[in-house]
Amino acid sequence: MKKTTPLPRYGGIEAGGSKFVCATGSGPQDLSNEIRFPTTTPEETLDRAVAYFREQRRRHPLSAIGVGSFGPLDARRGSPTFGYITTTPKPGWANTDFAGRLERALELPVYFDTDTNAAALGEHCWGAAQKLKDFLYLTVGTGIGGGAMANGRLLHGFNHIEAGHIRVPHDRERDPFPGNCPFHGDCLEGLACGPAVEQRWNRRAETLPPDHPAWELEAEYLAHAAVNFLLTLAPQRIIMGGGVMEQQQLFPLIRQKVSRLLNNYLRLPEITAHLDQYIVPPELGNRAGILGAIALAQKGGKL
Amino acid sequence: MKKTTPLPRYGGIEAGGSKFVCATGSGPQDLSNEIRFPTTTPEETLDRAVAYFREQRRRHPLSAIGVGSFGPLDARRGSPTFGYITTTPKPGWANTDFAGRLERALELPVYFDTDTNAAALGEHCWGAAQKLKDFLYLTVGTGIGGGAMANGRLLHGFNHIEAGHIRVPHDRERDPFPGNCPFHGDCLEGLACGPAVEQRWNRRAETLPPDHPAWELEAEYLAHAAVNFLLTLAPQRIIMGGGVMEQQQLFPLIRQKVSRLLNNYLRLPEITAHLDQYIVPPELGNRAGILGAIALAQKGGKL
Repeated sequence: MKKTTPLPRYGGIEAGGSKFVCATGSGPQDLSNEIRFPTTTPEETLDRAVAYFREQRRRHPLSAIGVGSFGPLDARRGSPTFGYITTTPKPGWANTDFAGRLERALELPVYFDTDTNAAALGEHCWGAAQKLKDFLYLTVGTGIGGGAMANGRLLHGFNHIEAGHIRVPHDRERDPFPGNCPFHGDCLEGLACGPAVEQRWNRRAETLPPDHPAWELEAEYLAHAAVNFLLTLAPQRIIMGGGVMEQQQLFPLIRQKVSRLLNNYLRLPEITAHLDQYIVPPELGNRAGILGAIALAQKGGKL
Repeated sequence: MKKTTPLPRYGGIEAGGSKFVCATGSGPQDLSNEIRFPTTTPEETLDRAVAYFREQRRRHPLSAIGVGSFGPLDARRGSPTFGYITTTPKPGWANTDFAGRLERALELPVYFDTDTNAAALGEHCWGAAQKLKDFLYLTVGTGIGGGAMANGRLLHGFNHIEAGHIRVPHDRERDPFPGNCPFHGDCLEGLACGPAVEQRWNRRAETLPPDHPAWELEAEYLAHAAVNFLLTLAPQRIIMGGGVMEQQQLFPLIRQKVSRLLNNYLRLPEITAHLDQYIVPPELGNRAGILGAIALAQKGGKL
């Protein structure tokens, strides 16, 4: 009888502003022991994560930890504050040495990036962006954020992208809502994140019927954003996830408007004729975040 | 006496819609024998380039040719139409096998990319983007175009970026000019390219005094664009060149407006405190294009 070597296992943390998700595994086939707990103080929350991984490690050794986190954070390897959550308005979390604390407590390498870059990497490994070297993952939910791969690596540039805050045309006659971004008013996030939809129409987004004009307007903003991203990054695919994108009716509306906005300027059949394969939902659904964290641990050193 | 091996020499073509520039050399220190001739038919123009390089080669062997060209073009290595000018409206030039024709006539490797990617590479090798792995080169002239490096390589994605055609907010009360882009009307190029400035104010741009309101408005559009690029690409620097940017008064206006638009959202000192080193003119000036073509030939295989 042949002895099989077990797959190396990794730890993943999807660190959100309201809850943490932790799990172990090496991919979708064996992701397991998932736990969730609320994001309270950094000490309490990170201690809880450490305790979880210590317990997991008793059953099976872990090779590394990956963290996809809310931000803003420092994702610049070599920076003195690499691995820190930096200027977040979330009480208590500004200047938290997230990765360092985990690394010291667990004595394991910790790979640390934004939640959206992690989700992008998850989709690259096992989802809608397999084999693609240049693509964008956009999440539209409580906020709007982007993660991107460029030339086969996660795009960091000066630190990490902040694609949710671009400006898009805003016709105040058609839409007098001034936008709710505390920094920019009517940037993309200010106009099109979930809370903006709710404030504009004064009701919970889930209760708006699929043919409500809210979605036509939402698609308009997201199409403008998609076109700007497409022209700036030349991504091979745009994956749009997050709570707002669970409104499936948005996809055909966005594609139609993207096509109208591009107006045959780009004559690439993969975009112009196959927008249904170009602007797509994540294949990993709401598991993109935690799987992306696992992927960060697995690929971390090589990205 | 020690014999020194001469530097390998390369050929470069800056292929513009109205004129071609050809030269040979290996960088700014030895760029030489530059000639210019008008862009007529593809046959005549490319034959002239071939004749030039044949003559140059008699004096000194050439290792490769680099071409930074007007477009749209196919910059996707491995594509059946790689090296073609594709859907250009320029009469006679659509579907021209630019690189292939040169390669067959000269029996030399030909590296082919957009004029803006070439200029970006030139600035990376010898100009304002040395040692930077992520930056944007934007040209604002007859049209608006961008070239970018991401993760240390020129950004191609699905083919090449088209950053000049993003949409930016356009307040029609303040600026009733509808934009002059034949595809998109009031995209960035439609609002802010040189001809748009001239049509809006009904006079040649060079004759508008530095304190004319034209420049305030121009800076407004370019600042919106710079902010969108900054948030989407996270470039370590934005280089702005081209004929319109020879109006030096634009730089402080753009920086001031970028700062106002970001509104302290990004707390990176290299951006927030040093915008004067972040949004800069090209160091190679109007030689970025031809030097970029030389750089393509030199680095081509490795980018």
